Amino acid sequence: MTIDIREATAADVAVIFELIRGLADYEKLSDHVSATEEKLRDTLFGDRRGADVLLACVEAECVGFALFFPNYSTFLAKPGIFLEDLYVKPEWRGKGIGTALLRRVAAVAVERGCGRFEWEVLDWNTPSIGFYKSLGAVPMDEWTKYRVTGEALTKLSRGE
Amino acid sequence: MTIDIREATAADVAVIFELIRGLADYEKLSDHVSATEEKLRDTLFGDRRGADVLLACVEAECVGFALFFPNYSTFLAKPGIFLEDLYVKPEWRGKGIGTALLRRVAAVAVERGCGRFEWEVLDWNTPSIGFYKSLGAVPMDEWTKYRVTGEALTKLSRGE
Repeated sequence: MTIDIREATAADVAVIFELIRGLADYEKLSDHVSATEEKLRDTLFGDRRGADVLLACVEAECVGFALFFPNYSTFLAKPGIFLEDLYVKPEWRGKGIGTALLRRVAAVAVERGCGRFEWEVLDWNTPSIGFYKSLGAVPMDEWTKYRVTGEALTKLSRGE
Repeated sequence: MTIDIREATAADVAVIFELIRGLADYEKLSDHVSATEEKLRDTLFGDRRGADVLLACVEAECVGFALFFPNYSTFLAKPGIFLEDLYVKPEWRGKGIGTALLRRVAAVAVERGCGRFEWEVLDWNTPSIGFYKSLGAVPMDEWTKYRVTGEALTKLSRGE
């Protein structure tokens, strides 16, 4: 089996959307998905590209993807890479496809002189956690992310 | 007291570095700081700008800063804003400076059509946590960040 990892193009939007929906389903977060193919095309392949997307394909079928963007560490004064999504279709797991994607993103991080490569995992996702630890990833247990969205974001921006 | 919030320029690197060291000291992470003024100048104000920096100044003194960069949500197919650092010098807290910085970043997020505005907090930092919750921020308690750095990152990139 040959795993071909390649950069996605606008022609891949339908398969990217299918993979995103697969990931949301796995994470039990399908009701959080408001993306559409058109929105993905605009934000990933338009004038302002929000992220890089790598596809993992076996022969004609794209069976997994990694989506990432730069972040920045003030303590290091260096860029980093944040991996927003990593997903392999259930029937294709256990074949090294996730590892191959992670390695490729790590290689991009090293090539860009990044100080760190980061991603987030749902705490109940023990298979993934074991996999990540085996690769040398360290949990940042003492930190919690806070998020403002929707109405609260608008209010905050207006000082209400 | 008038709080002036403005975009930082390369001429502000020394004060930015001083504020970053103040933040690291507060977070008990001073031994993690390898940034220098020169590295900050290159990565924040050079050809590839890693982040936006806002300074909060009272008369001639810059007493706080916010450093942020875009991220991306696949579920929303929208950009977001990640606030890497928010810091106000200890003697200037409780005067609305942190709120003013957060509001300004939230306004940038809204202006850019972002779906979310996020940051991370150390779990022991209860004063900040209370403050963030009062602004409508929601803790993403079920997620943990994983990080690969240094030797582990190089090995992962090489497939070792």
